[in-house]
Amino acid sequence: MSEYVGDLNSAQLELSGSALRRPFDPTAHDLEITFRLTRFADLKGRGCKVPQEVLNRLVSSLQQDFSTQDESGFMQMSIPRIGIGLDCSVTPLRHGGLCLVQTTDFFYPIVDDPYMMGKIACANVLSDLYAMGVTECDNMLMLLAVSTKMTEKERDVVIPLIMRGFKDTALEAGTTVTGGQSVVNPWCTIGGVASTICQPNEYIVPDNAVVGDVLVLTKPLGTQVAVNAHQWLDQPERWNRIKLVVSEEDVRKAYHRAMDSMARLNRTAARLMHKYNAHGSTDVTGFGLLGHAQTLASHQKKEVSFVIHNLPVIAKMAAVAKACGNMFQLLQGHSAETSGGLLICLPREQAAAYCKDIEKQEGYQAWIIGIVEKGNRTARIIDKPRVIEVPAKD
Amino acid sequence: MSEYVGDLNSAQLELSGSALRRPFDPTAHDLEITFRLTRFADLKGRGCKVPQEVLNRLVSSLQQDFSTQDESGFMQMSIPRIGIGLDCSVTPLRHGGLCLVQTTDFFYPIVDDPYMMGKIACANVLSDLYAMGVTECDNMLMLLAVSTKMTEKERDVVIPLIMRGFKDTALEAGTTVTGGQSVVNPWCTIGGVASTICQPNEYIVPDNAVVGDVLVLTKPLGTQVAVNAHQWLDQPERWNRIKLVVSEEDVRKAYHRAMDSMARLNRTAARLMHKYNAHGSTDVTGFGLLGHAQTLASHQKKEVSFVIHNLPVIAKMAAVAKACGNMFQLLQGHSAETSGGLLICLPREQAAAYCKDIEKQEGYQAWIIGIVEKGNRTARIIDKPRVIEVPAKD
Repeated sequence: MSEYVGDLNSAQLELSGSALRRPFDPTAHDLEITFRLTRFADLKGRGCKVPQEVLNRLVSSLQQDFSTQDESGFMQMSIPRIGIGLDCSVTPLRHGGLCLVQTTDFFYPIVDDPYMMGKIACANVLSDLYAMGVTECDNMLMLLAVSTKMTEKERDVVIPLIMRGFKDTALEAGTTVTGGQSVVNPWCTIGGVASTICQPNEYIVPDNAVVGDVLVLTKPLGTQVAVNAHQWLDQPERWNRIKLVVSEEDVRKAYHRAMDSMARLNRTAARLMHKYNAHGSTDVTGFGLLGHAQTLASHQKKEVSFVIHNLPVIAKMAAVAKACGNMFQLLQGHSAETSGGLLICLPREQAAAYCKDIEKQEGYQAWIIGIVEKGNRTARIIDKPRVIEVPAKD
Repeated sequence: MSEYVGDLNSAQLELSGSALRRPFDPTAHDLEITFRLTRFADLKGRGCKVPQEVLNRLVSSLQQDFSTQDESGFMQMSIPRIGIGLDCSVTPLRHGGLCLVQTTDFFYPIVDDPYMMGKIACANVLSDLYAMGVTECDNMLMLLAVSTKMTEKERDVVIPLIMRGFKDTALEAGTTVTGGQSVVNPWCTIGGVASTICQPNEYIVPDNAVVGDVLVLTKPLGTQVAVNAHQWLDQPERWNRIKLVVSEEDVRKAYHRAMDSMARLNRTAARLMHKYNAHGSTDVTGFGLLGHAQTLASHQKKEVSFVIHNLPVIAKMAAVAKACGNMFQLLQGHSAETSGGLLICLPREQAAAYCKDIEKQEGYQAWIIGIVEKGNRTARIIDKPRVIEVPAKD
């Protein structure tokens, strides 16, 4: 592996085109074989958010000061479940009918591969724009905190890889990283800001669901389960809890599928929302499929509710989740996802075409997971939802 | 003090108009009398940045990938001293000759008053726009991390105060906070993102200094010295080092002058840059007066250098800095400032009028501190600079 050492291109080598990436090898970068990026924070990925009910109380004293528009952005981004369902803030500008559509997000390492972590962080921030049907990002800023616990060597290897991954995904999205802020902090932190200036017709306000629409999901669930199961390979006592339902190989495949999925842009999904007249969309992240479905439902103009029948899940992760009791609540729709898919309301007659089109363009499946019926703006998952096992891409 | 308890308005009461704010009283908010916001991070304010030479190395591998424009933003914001001297990233937009001017900054508590900390964090982010001569901010996002070490009670008292302070200063600046991200983190963190969409004539590219210009500074130096000296009131061994040159009363006054100065917007200073044809400007923050002066000098089009003769310093803080040996390097121009003033190149014949005008409008002094002479784009402070003692506002 000597051709690797200390060389940024090693990250590129490790990235074998797309799906199945060569596993990150710390020793290939002169790091201890035991190096784990995810150990530089006690909370993982979107599990780092201030609990919704807490933030709700913290900001309640401010709410009366926010106009609905202000509130929308502020609420949704800090506490998505009570937001008005916009994944971005939308600000009318002083110039010719334009709007600033903007979002920010940052969190802690969720995978051990620094380059992939950078890509995931970038895709995750951009996903908020894509959920609004915005396909062009005009500018990105990178937010980075180097862990005080990293050795100089670890820092010098890991941080450039994270930056490179973030930047590569930004380029893939047709945008650039023009700034940022970097600090030192006990926990390694990575995130960004995505901004677009656009005409009102470039974004889709997610409040037009009508009875008869169907719900489409563009990425499988189970990223949180997969990254945890993968970490348990190092932890016998945890591993013993799940080894009866899953093999090491299954877990490694699921982990790579999860990384690939989290690093994938929802940009094509957003583009096709326009082509197939989507009635609204949100992206599935920290509050799980049901949490975000409820947010979306609660802000529809018409009296509708969402009913979810199917749960596409990364292969074997439903079994792992079950084996862990109530830990993940994956089948209840509460398992946090990072850089998850778009949950989209589409006219019934368009949904199949949407799914076919995205698969044709990207080689990734999308699934019809539920329906929109008359109701009181809530969302639920049926009693025994059908679990669709989504195999690793290889 | 019972009228205080648990009530957000207490923050307003504590804020007596402007200059001399009633000191933050933890007990008035049901907190322990020993509560100190600044203890929720091991690094203070702008002292949290990754050392310039380190970041320089970390990002060097990426530099070749950035176009000059990209680099400018990215470099300057993570490592101001080698930036091309822009305090913001400037991105040309797809729409009618408009640009996105954007900046982000976040750091750790530097004062113990949560409401003032929020105001300072907001003023500090906006200052990067003002340094570019941009006076209108279209949108702000708030970046917040709640310390894992805070008790629920502390969190529930402190976070709303910080948010309120941030929001109040945003309103004062004529903008609004429409979103943000909140996480939990070992260290309390506060910052934001400021964005403006404007025509090219709304910002001033800071590269037009000519021989004969003079340098104006709009806020006194010494904020870092003042906040440290104030903390030492609780630490006898530290206090003994400086008590011969300064009284408790002096330190309290300096601390309040520093808070007032850090929370003050550079907006009027930015507006007047247009009126008096400024040739360029930067804001003085983490790398001290000389660090930012060098950045500004290094990116001038003409062969000029900056020579600084006068150092306006919060009263008594120069003596404190001297008593601390090399700790601050205040008179060498290296002491970090938080939300410092604008350092502006002005045509000599306009400078006096600029200073008079800002004092008339705001009641705050600005100072002519140096000159622009022929040279190799460097900046220096003369051997025995004149220290101007700036009294507390009261």
